[in-house]
Amino acid sequence: MTIDTRHPREIRADIRRGALTGVTAGLGEGYVQANLAVLPKEQAYDFLLFCQRNPRPCPVIEVTDVGSPEPAGVAPGADLRTDLPRYRIYKDGALADEVTDITPYWRDDLVAFLLGCSFTFEWALLEAGIPLWHIAHGKNVAMWRTSIACRPAGRFHGPMVVSMRPIPSELVPRAVTVSARFPNAHGAPVHVGDPAAIGVRELDRPDYGDAQPVGPRDVPVFWACGVTPQAVALASRPPFMITHSPGHMFITDLPNSALSVL
Amino acid sequence: MTIDTRHPREIRADIRRGALTGVTAGLGEGYVQANLAVLPKEQAYDFLLFCQRNPRPCPVIEVTDVGSPEPAGVAPGADLRTDLPRYRIYKDGALADEVTDITPYWRDDLVAFLLGCSFTFEWALLEAGIPLWHIAHGKNVAMWRTSIACRPAGRFHGPMVVSMRPIPSELVPRAVTVSARFPNAHGAPVHVGDPAAIGVRELDRPDYGDAQPVGPRDVPVFWACGVTPQAVALASRPPFMITHSPGHMFITDLPNSALSVL
Repeated sequence: MTIDTRHPREIRADIRRGALTGVTAGLGEGYVQANLAVLPKEQAYDFLLFCQRNPRPCPVIEVTDVGSPEPAGVAPGADLRTDLPRYRIYKDGALADEVTDITPYWRDDLVAFLLGCSFTFEWALLEAGIPLWHIAHGKNVAMWRTSIACRPAGRFHGPMVVSMRPIPSELVPRAVTVSARFPNAHGAPVHVGDPAAIGVRELDRPDYGDAQPVGPRDVPVFWACGVTPQAVALASRPPFMITHSPGHMFITDLPNSALSVL
Repeated sequence: MTIDTRHPREIRADIRRGALTGVTAGLGEGYVQANLAVLPKEQAYDFLLFCQRNPRPCPVIEVTDVGSPEPAGVAPGADLRTDLPRYRIYKDGALADEVTDITPYWRDDLVAFLLGCSFTFEWALLEAGIPLWHIAHGKNVAMWRTSIACRPAGRFHGPMVVSMRPIPSELVPRAVTVSARFPNAHGAPVHVGDPAAIGVRELDRPDYGDAQPVGPRDVPVFWACGVTPQAVALASRPPFMITHSPGHMFITDLPNSALSVL
């Protein structure tokens, strides 16, 4: 993984002019990256309420003013229409287009939501000396739909999606406390141990991402996952929705440490 | 202060039938108490967004479904129309009535917000051995409007209101870390030390509550205060709004520890 240590402002400028179009892992090292969900104002209240009721999978770090593409609270001057490398356009819940600039799709009634992402707590886990197999091997983390129901809000309802990381058993307490300090990046695990208890049947067959080995000294540790809000929103078939493409996140001006509550 | 250790469900039943009409300090010991703000759906999105953008003064712990008086997430079966001891009714931002039952005022388009309250972190401070003068002396905490602007959302904008507790200097770090564990009850202090830096001119003349002595070994420590969202909402003169009367809070079924992130 190539590491780009420039300030996010410079990296976003490269993305805006089309010089960077790939995934954002390794870019803006040390800065918070965020999931994007854009919905018309008509659906925005229910979506914001859904996030408020399900803060583990849906930690809101920014909501733009109606019609404004500027995330003024986390990256003043940025433009969410151009500053992500790749976007997905959904119509009636179905993928309609994949683009590198959503300016042609922007409307005066749109609201953009930025949701915290696992990159932040993974950085904290690595800093704390906890090995992460999927990062060491350049893979995507393994994810599953669970039997844990999110609390519904208006039109939005559905199961929680989780990611799993195998953690050596003696490091499990440290992994819990370190991630708990970042409630706006999914926070503490939602489950430790028996996968079946949350409806995960086969640890070697994830619903999304790549399978990873779980050694005899490892405990499977499950965190709420940012795939949840997108999956839930799309399942309700909103007439119009824009998201980032998987892995192509928005890089904020917030250092990871800014999300720590302790 | 009389301590009532029954389960909140029993205490709320007494409040509902009019047997308890006073302030809720000391009731439901160990359980989270909450500030109430009720607004029509038309203002609910802006208010929820205001809270999301200003989580220190406005920690949202529950939002009811439109028209429903049941806070299903924090007290299933409770009724917010009857289960608080006293309410204030505001019309066009002016106090219109003070009642013990808002059933006659309830409407199908109302949304109730419950916001975290300082009782929770004060309990944690006391447990950690930090003396709180206003509690020891049966007074209200001292509060001020500050020069810290809240981040606006739609029609809502205004200054942050803070409460101040004099903390012996050697206990300041402990007071910070203990309260930081409760982001949904105002979390860590927003300011430690020089009152003038946040626009507080006279420590012996609070804008709300009771003055308290600051000893030579004490540091003034300021926390964001739940008076903020009510003050901000009322300043925008909403056509209709209901709040709890000061000190007459809603007692949830959540133990204080449920709000701790670590």
